[in-house]
Amino acid sequence: MLNYTFNDDTIVALATPQGVGAIAVIRLSGKDAIDICNKVFKGKDLEKQESHTIHFGTIRDGEKVIDEVLVSLFVAPKSYTKENVVEISTHGSGYIISEVIKLLLKNGARLAQPGEFTKRAFVNGKFDLAQAEAVADLIHSESEAAHRAAMNQMRGGFSGKIKELREQLIHFASMIELELDFVEEDVEFASRDDLRKLINDLQKVIGELISSFALGNVIKTGIPTVIAGKPNAGKSTLLNTLLNEEKAIVSDIPGTTRDFIEDEINIEGIPFRFIDTAGIREATDKIEALGVERTHAQMQKASLIIYLFDLSQDTMTEIQRDINKLENLGVPFIKVGNKLDQALPELLQQLQGQDIIFISASEKQHIEELKVKILSAVNVEQFKTGNTMVTNIRHYDSLVNTRKALDDVLHAVDAGMTGDLLALDIRNALHYLGEITGEITTDDLLGNIFSKFCIGK
Amino acid sequence: MLNYTFNDDTIVALATPQGVGAIAVIRLSGKDAIDICNKVFKGKDLEKQESHTIHFGTIRDGEKVIDEVLVSLFVAPKSYTKENVVEISTHGSGYIISEVIKLLLKNGARLAQPGEFTKRAFVNGKFDLAQAEAVADLIHSESEAAHRAAMNQMRGGFSGKIKELREQLIHFASMIELELDFVEEDVEFASRDDLRKLINDLQKVIGELISSFALGNVIKTGIPTVIAGKPNAGKSTLLNTLLNEEKAIVSDIPGTTRDFIEDEINIEGIPFRFIDTAGIREATDKIEALGVERTHAQMQKASLIIYLFDLSQDTMTEIQRDINKLENLGVPFIKVGNKLDQALPELLQQLQGQDIIFISASEKQHIEELKVKILSAVNVEQFKTGNTMVTNIRHYDSLVNTRKALDDVLHAVDAGMTGDLLALDIRNALHYLGEITGEITTDDLLGNIFSKFCIGK
Repeated sequence: MLNYTFNDDTIVALATPQGVGAIAVIRLSGKDAIDICNKVFKGKDLEKQESHTIHFGTIRDGEKVIDEVLVSLFVAPKSYTKENVVEISTHGSGYIISEVIKLLLKNGARLAQPGEFTKRAFVNGKFDLAQAEAVADLIHSESEAAHRAAMNQMRGGFSGKIKELREQLIHFASMIELELDFVEEDVEFASRDDLRKLINDLQKVIGELISSFALGNVIKTGIPTVIAGKPNAGKSTLLNTLLNEEKAIVSDIPGTTRDFIEDEINIEGIPFRFIDTAGIREATDKIEALGVERTHAQMQKASLIIYLFDLSQDTMTEIQRDINKLENLGVPFIKVGNKLDQALPELLQQLQGQDIIFISASEKQHIEELKVKILSAVNVEQFKTGNTMVTNIRHYDSLVNTRKALDDVLHAVDAGMTGDLLALDIRNALHYLGEITGEITTDDLLGNIFSKFCIGK
Repeated sequence: MLNYTFNDDTIVALATPQGVGAIAVIRLSGKDAIDICNKVFKGKDLEKQESHTIHFGTIRDGEKVIDEVLVSLFVAPKSYTKENVVEISTHGSGYIISEVIKLLLKNGARLAQPGEFTKRAFVNGKFDLAQAEAVADLIHSESEAAHRAAMNQMRGGFSGKIKELREQLIHFASMIELELDFVEEDVEFASRDDLRKLINDLQKVIGELISSFALGNVIKTGIPTVIAGKPNAGKSTLLNTLLNEEKAIVSDIPGTTRDFIEDEINIEGIPFRFIDTAGIREATDKIEALGVERTHAQMQKASLIIYLFDLSQDTMTEIQRDINKLENLGVPFIKVGNKLDQALPELLQQLQGQDIIFISASEKQHIEELKVKILSAVNVEQFKTGNTMVTNIRHYDSLVNTRKALDDVLHAVDAGMTGDLLALDIRNALHYLGEITGEITTDDLLGNIFSKFCIGK
């Protein structure tokens, strides 16, 4: 059974972002949510209204009108938290928001902790822990691939898979525990061969999930990419050109300009994250890039290197030497000749037929071609998969622990261990799987997970 | 009759602030709003639902689920714009917002112009122009006084007063125009004495409204205040101490921290705006403050001067000389002895009994006493009035024009002018009054007013 510290008080928080906007939404949840709102709302009697209805009126502190608002009612259990929920839509002024929240506090609500609405939704069985965690991922998703992974997880794709595994194991565990009751009669309700087969099947699925974390993690944080090349090859210019293009695309839709994660670029819905671009941006480094230990380390960590040559002054000898070094690194790389607008004609001729893409970062020439090249280097299809994948390191750890526990079960079976010992190992595996969806959890774990949410969620 | 360029297309915009939050609200308005949303919403058939109801479902682009959302329906004319309005409450991710808006555009909506929702509300007769303008003021109100003035105006207090004036004049205009029909019979339906009395009454009210603008404007933009004093007297330290205190107060309520207007400070709900604090902040100016022309000009523009003496090094002679200069300025000022923690004991003794408040800005000593002193210098009560006041320079201009037109009427009456000439002047006065509430207006004027709104309002 679940056993959490459970509050039946009513929480309140701003649910929309800070800043000036047309409207703001203040959210209340708890058994007294409707009652508390009713005390400060002048309009219809909210206690007597249906769930999922909206009511116009004023929020008042005594005689003082704080705002004209719309109040949305969600009567338990038909709400996000499965508690009574009220959403007050006010004019989007910081002063009004602060006054309304203060008034609700005065009337019996308390300020919500970060993620407390979603925590209540989880505790009240609205969704499991992996789904709750996906809500935060969804809010922070900034690329199509990250969005797809979070949406699939929130809608229960990942949880479904884990639950399936867990149910098969539970069935087996109950058979083994039944044996324990008849231990003197030396019967085997659970066939050891069947168990061995089941565990092998489970290990295959778990192994796939564990491997998917490499991709899931990249989707969540971006493909680690390095723009390298000699000083003055135009590394920072190229990065800025790529960043600015994306900003321009998004700001075509007014009102949706978003805060960009520094140095994260979306190409066709695939996120790329540029490593240590502080270094790249300086570009004052007078020592050749390939020779510098730090850059070397960066390039080894990367999944992709975009290597810039300077068409306006490099020699074929230099270029060939750098390519050789790149090939020895064993990291996929793209060869880019920059400064096409000032290219040495002789060098251009010598490079014909080589797999080098010619651009001018400053003049924004052939940037689209470069993007196509970048995409073709990373196996785009894997990012478009609808497959369930692990994006959360907590889930990854639990899966690795599960795999180990299942290995222990297998060893125990092979060693001919008795049912009571097998049961112990199987329970271990069940424990780790249960951690993922929250069947098994602790207040500490929950606190840790939900504290990473924003307030109001 | 009103005659505006009227669009019956459907507009869409983000109604909540940009940035990451738990939820975001995307708003549609227009006759096809429900139809367009229905095309991308999987859940109940929105066309068949009641006004003021909320529906859970998903927004889909073909098979791709963009988000799980709540859709709020407002069926015309029971909405903010009096058109069909749909509010889609999504998870607060920039990616999701952008995808949902793009999808709605693809399905027939167009992006809303700044203020276009409120403009439609005005054009459709939901409220008059002065009330519409108050919506923007309300959103930007950052102090109790500014909020009270905007709320009063939005709820029709100001418009009511103007309409009352206008109706009385309209009554008179119709009497005079009636005379014109009987011009050959030389009758006077409209008593000239009554007209004179009416105009005097109107001029009194208009005069009061015009005077209220001084206060209204201060309430909207803050009381212009200068912190002055010699270099190193601690001007910038004091300003930072005051600013940080207010920030600390507001950030007590998590989720409501707001972007501060640089150098605007709220004391007990009264806004103070510090003039040219860039200069104050530098504090590298080596020439004595009172001697510098620029500072002098700043001080003359101010409504209040907070003058800092340096208790750690000033002499009585210097202090007395500065006080004399301050007195000659004719601007209210507060004398503050700063650096109390390093004060010269002898100087402190000499200053005993004088109207000087001793503080330490860096050690945050006696800051509360200073605030009380500041409040007492500005006649707080006037800010707490519930009286109607003019806060908008457009309204102020119209009122000044009205007053002039009414003066012309009065002169015409005194000169024994005939009804047709009087009617012309009265119509002028009516025109200017009508501009305030929007009975008389032009597309240009509307465009100008609503372009200052944010998108989504």
